[in-house]
Amino acid sequence: MNRRLVIRLLGSILMIEAAAMLPSFFVALYFGDGDALSFVYTMGLLLAFGLPMRYLSRPKVLDLRAREGFLVVPLAWLLMSMFGALPFVFSGMIPNYVDAVFEAVSGFTTTGASILCQFVGQPRGAMFWRSFTHWVGGMGVLVLTLAILPKMSGRTSHLVRAESPGPTLSKLLPRMGDTAKVLYLIYGVLTFIMIVILMLCGMNLYDAAIHAMGTAGTGGFSNYGSSVGAFDSATIDAVITFFMVLFGINFALFYKLIHGDWRDVKNNEELRWYLCIFFGVTLLVTLIMLPTYEGDFLTSLRYSSFQIASIISTTGYATADFNLWPIAARMLIFFTMFIGSCAGSTAGGMKICRVGMMCKQSLREVRRVFQPRKVQVVRFEGKAVEEPILRQIAVFAFVYVALVVIGALLVSFEGLYDVETNFTAALTCVSNVGPGLGFVGPSGNFAGYGAFSKMVLSLLMLAGRLEIFPILALFHPAIWRK
Amino acid sequence: MNRRLVIRLLGSILMIEAAAMLPSFFVALYFGDGDALSFVYTMGLLLAFGLPMRYLSRPKVLDLRAREGFLVVPLAWLLMSMFGALPFVFSGMIPNYVDAVFEAVSGFTTTGASILCQFVGQPRGAMFWRSFTHWVGGMGVLVLTLAILPKMSGRTSHLVRAESPGPTLSKLLPRMGDTAKVLYLIYGVLTFIMIVILMLCGMNLYDAAIHAMGTAGTGGFSNYGSSVGAFDSATIDAVITFFMVLFGINFALFYKLIHGDWRDVKNNEELRWYLCIFFGVTLLVTLIMLPTYEGDFLTSLRYSSFQIASIISTTGYATADFNLWPIAARMLIFFTMFIGSCAGSTAGGMKICRVGMMCKQSLREVRRVFQPRKVQVVRFEGKAVEEPILRQIAVFAFVYVALVVIGALLVSFEGLYDVETNFTAALTCVSNVGPGLGFVGPSGNFAGYGAFSKMVLSLLMLAGRLEIFPILALFHPAIWRK
Repeated sequence: MNRRLVIRLLGSILMIEAAAMLPSFFVALYFGDGDALSFVYTMGLLLAFGLPMRYLSRPKVLDLRAREGFLVVPLAWLLMSMFGALPFVFSGMIPNYVDAVFEAVSGFTTTGASILCQFVGQPRGAMFWRSFTHWVGGMGVLVLTLAILPKMSGRTSHLVRAESPGPTLSKLLPRMGDTAKVLYLIYGVLTFIMIVILMLCGMNLYDAAIHAMGTAGTGGFSNYGSSVGAFDSATIDAVITFFMVLFGINFALFYKLIHGDWRDVKNNEELRWYLCIFFGVTLLVTLIMLPTYEGDFLTSLRYSSFQIASIISTTGYATADFNLWPIAARMLIFFTMFIGSCAGSTAGGMKICRVGMMCKQSLREVRRVFQPRKVQVVRFEGKAVEEPILRQIAVFAFVYVALVVIGALLVSFEGLYDVETNFTAALTCVSNVGPGLGFVGPSGNFAGYGAFSKMVLSLLMLAGRLEIFPILALFHPAIWRK
Repeated sequence: MNRRLVIRLLGSILMIEAAAMLPSFFVALYFGDGDALSFVYTMGLLLAFGLPMRYLSRPKVLDLRAREGFLVVPLAWLLMSMFGALPFVFSGMIPNYVDAVFEAVSGFTTTGASILCQFVGQPRGAMFWRSFTHWVGGMGVLVLTLAILPKMSGRTSHLVRAESPGPTLSKLLPRMGDTAKVLYLIYGVLTFIMIVILMLCGMNLYDAAIHAMGTAGTGGFSNYGSSVGAFDSATIDAVITFFMVLFGINFALFYKLIHGDWRDVKNNEELRWYLCIFFGVTLLVTLIMLPTYEGDFLTSLRYSSFQIASIISTTGYATADFNLWPIAARMLIFFTMFIGSCAGSTAGGMKICRVGMMCKQSLREVRRVFQPRKVQVVRFEGKAVEEPILRQIAVFAFVYVALVVIGALLVSFEGLYDVETNFTAALTCVSNVGPGLGFVGPSGNFAGYGAFSKMVLSLLMLAGRLEIFPILALFHPAIWRK
């Protein structure tokens, strides 16, 4: 293993993180809530570690192999979270370091699971940073690094592959750095549009920025205890619902749309599945919730569509406490938590394309029962999917569920809560959704868990965001060998 | 499709079922609880349908292809359950037919989930039949048919393959009928030994037979409301624990043992995994339960080992209400419910060999992350496993979990209970365990669900017992084509 190259890359990323703290620092200066210094300290620490790692580590070979690529990404995310937690500690917002790391991991992985119990009177710079981590984590930190620092190393596709959600990587442009720039440009413009619309709906700039970043990254941190429900506005609910669904769509499709490839977008199989699931589940939940909303279809639709958009896009905002909803609605939410959105979006979950290919593979096995000799090909997006990819996706789905079950088991060793809470806590973390059911529902939070559980859940969030195998690889001794 | 052959085979099976009712009929006659006539009626109906189906349907070709084989098996199980429910209805033990079918399906699939609320004063012939279905269903009805009726058709391995648990079929003897005979012989002898031992421990013949059949089939029906706990005897607990673990072992190993292949048994990888999981989880639960049993290690071990043996062998007997256990113990039980025992045993669940191969496949994917070009073979039982089998197992695991989630979702539409109850109800049915957590825990039962849920759960039990694909194939239109 090329350790020097790994250290050098990690150094760059720490420097990028220092730069990423600047907006929050200015917000802190502007509001003067006394948290500006905490950013100065953290940026100082980041540079104190980042600069020597970047410039004193001189690798003999600059070539990035798969092994280093898949080592850099999870290590970068771990380091970023450990440093990203410091402003919370220094500002006094989250004095406990384990809690602060949980919050930072939840931010970067765009989960939105929180241990924060008190929202009023928190320093606004630190709160801004909390939501800013969503925005950076959504598109990916390595992608950002590539967009900013050109020619970090020879082959960089390993880095992006380890960080980008989905079974295959769609390169929009021949050079990885250009693809990264285009992705961040679309991302930034969409976020900006959302901020403007939210302000037109009556939000102030600060709230609009926080909620736009939370939506764009499909994160879900709000600066209000009752989340988006605090605004109590049907227009704001509708706008955020629309953007949550939008940010669950593969960004490559936005790129194609800009280039006029309307047919590609229309024929996109994953997008069709995604919208069908969203509208289908929303309709079901709307009908189930009708009696609760006294037969008012539009009100039921407003709350149901928001919650389902929030869960399927793995954002995690709430305008209603779905924990109190009838069991059928709660089960649909539980079901939706597994799936997630499209590959290549900022969302988490198993991803629609994987679920779709698994369904098609399953149907094939059913047909094989009575047609054992017929050769049957699984098609997705109009193309035959190669068998190794099918097998890899099947294994991914297994490990996904296994992580949820094992995570819930580990968390249970602390002896807290019930099966529903612990199971959905693990599920919501692996899927990067945010709220679960039971004690970790929209009106509860993760503060009640002990340090051990918080560390387990943090690892689950990272595993979910990096699509499991890069995080698991860290525990394999062979990756550390020279 | 060769419909006449299918009808002819189904006719044979109905006749076999009529014969299988004879022991229960004699028990009913002996005790004179007034349920003897209900068996006469049912056997009459079975023959009235079975005889013409067997002798009037004359297929032109006797050759059994995969399609017919996989059609006969699920249909046979459905028919058997529908007729097998009649003695419960006729005897007045379970007046509602849907409830009676649920109980019969639960019996034949060796699940042991019950809707029976009242145990005292029930007709003893019908209660004997309820447990006898476990014994027949455990080893398989088609296997029994093959053992009794030689040369039913040319190729019969399709039938056994559809009914025998596990990813591959181990043929002990060149002819399928001989294999079936040997399996039933071992099965019968072991059951007989267990009856004798239970009687030596103080049980009467009737109770001993009921609990031996429930253990041998890994079913779990008891004739007492508090299950095996009713005997309150450490010796009986130990005997049943031992036999539950024993009947979770691949029967091919017993055959090898008789033939002196001690090394094959010792080197069996699945058996090692099975025993490791059993002893490991038992030790953990024993330690977790220590405070509850006031630090008495042996008492804790007694109840913990019984419950874990009961869950991992998918039997479902209980000597303690594990629903009241600490969350960590409950989660371990939940975790164990997924796994099940060895392939080729009478137990349900995903099967140890599948879980083992999935773990090895997952590890391979982790290694692939940083060694993408190295060819890596997955080995099980010392042999390289073919890629199509690995893929099939991965898809099986996905569909298994999907069935649990979708089943829990469907059951929730009735609006009853909570996530924990509905989720574990679906899981315990697919895994053929019996009790779940929450309202379907060891002290509860399935009586509270409505007719729709009971039908869904019955299908899940059948899907679990026949290893999913044969049941799903019934819903595929192509299998019905001429």
